[in-house]
Amino acid sequence: MSAPPVAPDPFDLVIFGGTGDLARRKLLPALLHRFADGQIAPGTRILGVARDEGLDDEGYRTTVRGWLQPQAGPQRLDAFLALLNYRALDVRHEAGWDEVARLILAPGDRVRVFYLATAPDIFVPICERLRGCGLNGPATRVVIEKPIGSDRASAAGINDAIGHCFDERQTYRIDHYLGKETVQNLTALRFANALFEPIWRAEHVDHVQITVAETVGVEGRAAYYDRAGAMRDMVQNHLLQLLCLVAMEPPSRLSADALRDEKLKVLRALRPIGAANAASLGVRGQYRAGAVDGQAVPGYPDELGAPSRTETFVALKAEVANWRWAGVPFYLRTGKRMPLRVSEIVVSFRAVPHSIFEGSTGPIHPNRLVLRLQPDESVTLWLTNKVPGPGGMRLRDVPLDMSFAETFGRQHHVDAYERLLMDVVRGNPMLFMRRDEVEAAWAWADPILAAWAASDDAPKPYTAGSWGPSAAVALIERDGRTWIDDVD
Amino acid sequence: MSAPPVAPDPFDLVIFGGTGDLARRKLLPALLHRFADGQIAPGTRILGVARDEGLDDEGYRTTVRGWLQPQAGPQRLDAFLALLNYRALDVRHEAGWDEVARLILAPGDRVRVFYLATAPDIFVPICERLRGCGLNGPATRVVIEKPIGSDRASAAGINDAIGHCFDERQTYRIDHYLGKETVQNLTALRFANALFEPIWRAEHVDHVQITVAETVGVEGRAAYYDRAGAMRDMVQNHLLQLLCLVAMEPPSRLSADALRDEKLKVLRALRPIGAANAASLGVRGQYRAGAVDGQAVPGYPDELGAPSRTETFVALKAEVANWRWAGVPFYLRTGKRMPLRVSEIVVSFRAVPHSIFEGSTGPIHPNRLVLRLQPDESVTLWLTNKVPGPGGMRLRDVPLDMSFAETFGRQHHVDAYERLLMDVVRGNPMLFMRRDEVEAAWAWADPILAAWAASDDAPKPYTAGSWGPSAAVALIERDGRTWIDDVD
Repeated sequence: MSAPPVAPDPFDLVIFGGTGDLARRKLLPALLHRFADGQIAPGTRILGVARDEGLDDEGYRTTVRGWLQPQAGPQRLDAFLALLNYRALDVRHEAGWDEVARLILAPGDRVRVFYLATAPDIFVPICERLRGCGLNGPATRVVIEKPIGSDRASAAGINDAIGHCFDERQTYRIDHYLGKETVQNLTALRFANALFEPIWRAEHVDHVQITVAETVGVEGRAAYYDRAGAMRDMVQNHLLQLLCLVAMEPPSRLSADALRDEKLKVLRALRPIGAANAASLGVRGQYRAGAVDGQAVPGYPDELGAPSRTETFVALKAEVANWRWAGVPFYLRTGKRMPLRVSEIVVSFRAVPHSIFEGSTGPIHPNRLVLRLQPDESVTLWLTNKVPGPGGMRLRDVPLDMSFAETFGRQHHVDAYERLLMDVVRGNPMLFMRRDEVEAAWAWADPILAAWAASDDAPKPYTAGSWGPSAAVALIERDGRTWIDDVD
Repeated sequence: MSAPPVAPDPFDLVIFGGTGDLARRKLLPALLHRFADGQIAPGTRILGVARDEGLDDEGYRTTVRGWLQPQAGPQRLDAFLALLNYRALDVRHEAGWDEVARLILAPGDRVRVFYLATAPDIFVPICERLRGCGLNGPATRVVIEKPIGSDRASAAGINDAIGHCFDERQTYRIDHYLGKETVQNLTALRFANALFEPIWRAEHVDHVQITVAETVGVEGRAAYYDRAGAMRDMVQNHLLQLLCLVAMEPPSRLSADALRDEKLKVLRALRPIGAANAASLGVRGQYRAGAVDGQAVPGYPDELGAPSRTETFVALKAEVANWRWAGVPFYLRTGKRMPLRVSEIVVSFRAVPHSIFEGSTGPIHPNRLVLRLQPDESVTLWLTNKVPGPGGMRLRDVPLDMSFAETFGRQHHVDAYERLLMDVVRGNPMLFMRRDEVEAAWAWADPILAAWAASDDAPKPYTAGSWGPSAAVALIERDGRTWIDDVD
């Protein structure tokens, strides 16, 4: 019903951590694809910044060429690489910043994006340097990745420090889950169809499940991960953001602040979990040696090289205590070394109150809407239908694919970073977390973490390649419900 | 969730009108397909009865072989034809009935079905003969086709006369629309899914459209048709039955009487249309010369050979005056010489009360559920979804095919008569009209017909190959709605 957007004006993008993992796996491929789609105008400049003094512009382009070669033909890749430059910089020291500033300030007031694809402990130092160089004017945007703090107080400290350098509206806290096609589709489904909103409430929804399961262990990130754990690494940000998009009231319009106001209300409506009920509403786990995908893998303490009380698995029974959702459990679950890599939201509707089909068919399963974010993206509505044919009324559960890949024609799978990077360039912060959201999420997570820290119990061990400790199964089964592990 | 049914015991089926159009086009092909699917047990006997004294058993089998040859291999066809016999009979005279009775009564108390595929004026004479021969025992069922009378009084007279010979539970008034897969599916969709029932009401449904459009004219049936017209031929039975299945409350169970009780309640809840409002709520039309499918075709008076005030097109704005549906228009429309052959129910939901997407997309179209009965059968849910890709939130209407042909695998299209004939054999009258339904439908139709008969206005002429007179368009457009003529 409207045309695709035109490309934004040429802009400058500085990637701090330009030689790092995120730049290699996500940012530069995303930029390449946007460039290939004509969404990055000629004259745009992308500056990689890292500590490696052995690199220059040509060396950086050669490095990036190696990363991107499989993804584009040589001609297009050449054109893209021509946008790239590189500067070596130890961001904590003053030396080199002049050079960066001169490079970036040169063309005047074009949009400037600083992407902090770095360790979180240098977010604030970088922001302060940028301010020091005068690189914080109104056309400037700064992008930061999770984790933002490790509790509410530390997050507020970081937000304060960044806020000293940049306005809130210049600050883009990225959560790539929000850039997923399926997550966007959820908003379209809920608010562009009159069909779903009337049943999107406690009266008709039995419960919601949100699962983010990884097959990987902690690998190279063990030092960071052992300080964080699954609650800080996944639940406080990704899972709560998904919960917000499922549970929020309709915003009056799809604007950045209207949407984030509604998400914030959900976060603030979460029923508190703390010392009194953390044991009954939450389960922590930590993986032990086992097998994933037929490969033997070590346990978490072995990977870490030390015993630890850090959780690699969390299951929680959350509740949004408002008129729409009171009494509807939101079961959240995330873990490492699960049997499958899958991120999925399941909205499970109530069963029909009464079967008129008794005698002619078996039990009728409740309708479910399954929003899958990983590994593939899809939206599936499970309905019950009649088996065609003359043999009386026999029923069958049937998945309706609502992702419309067929209808829209196959096309390049769009990574979340493509959308989010262009949103930054366009100055649209809708899919980024506002500071009050981040802090409200911590405000809910803090008492749970505190209860666990104060507990005598360690996280329950689970075998790598299983769906977590049996206590996580008990958490949902004692409500007469079941984790949906095998959808699609 | 349950297995297909086993074949019923061998039975006897007598087709009065065994050489007629219905036997040739529908009944015998349906029986052949059920036989091929193993649903007609060996020992079953099918007796064709007609006035043609030139035929014997072998001659009849040869005739039927000619009809069915394209539909089955020779071996299977031979086996099926071996079930067939033929007797010549003028049903109005006593001669020959003894022979039929001897043939049918021989094997004792097996199920006996008498299918009256004849002109309606001999329904009652046949039933009286059957009673006279003692062929109305408890295992006997009689099937009659529309039309049942031409108004409530005449229908009651026929029902009384048949009721003098057969119990109501032995009397199967067939409406083949009720045997359609899509109509069955509507019941499954409504009552096996918790998703639809909450929105299946005035609060969420804007209006319902039911269209039964034919491309044919009256051809060989002109004499009958000119006495009937579209209201008696189509609206009083097919369209009202479809309306009932859309509008009925959930029955407590899917049993013949529970279902028909609910349909009856709908018929009795129809807001009366009569002298005072027939002109504002109804439109009659009669086709004139035009073109259908690129072929020039004559007008109705030319086909009939005389001027006529009989309607070949009806559009009505009906209302089910109860708590669920008050204020929701049910627009009914049927006609001959329309541009397309299509039978379709459209449930049009209300628009979203407010678009949150303003600025980023065009208007949002309301969701629709389209149940198509002819020419192909399908169920399609029209939803609005996001166009995939990174270009902001763009929306698009997308049809979701809920008929699941893919899912269930392609198979022989099952004709409504296959289902309905076997339901008769099994003694399941659920999909047949009970006498109170027929008479309630006439009770609603009679004042409309009376108002039209008393009116000075003739039916409005429309060009063959158009969607009826412009007044039919005005009927819906003045409510701010539009006939959906081009779905799929």
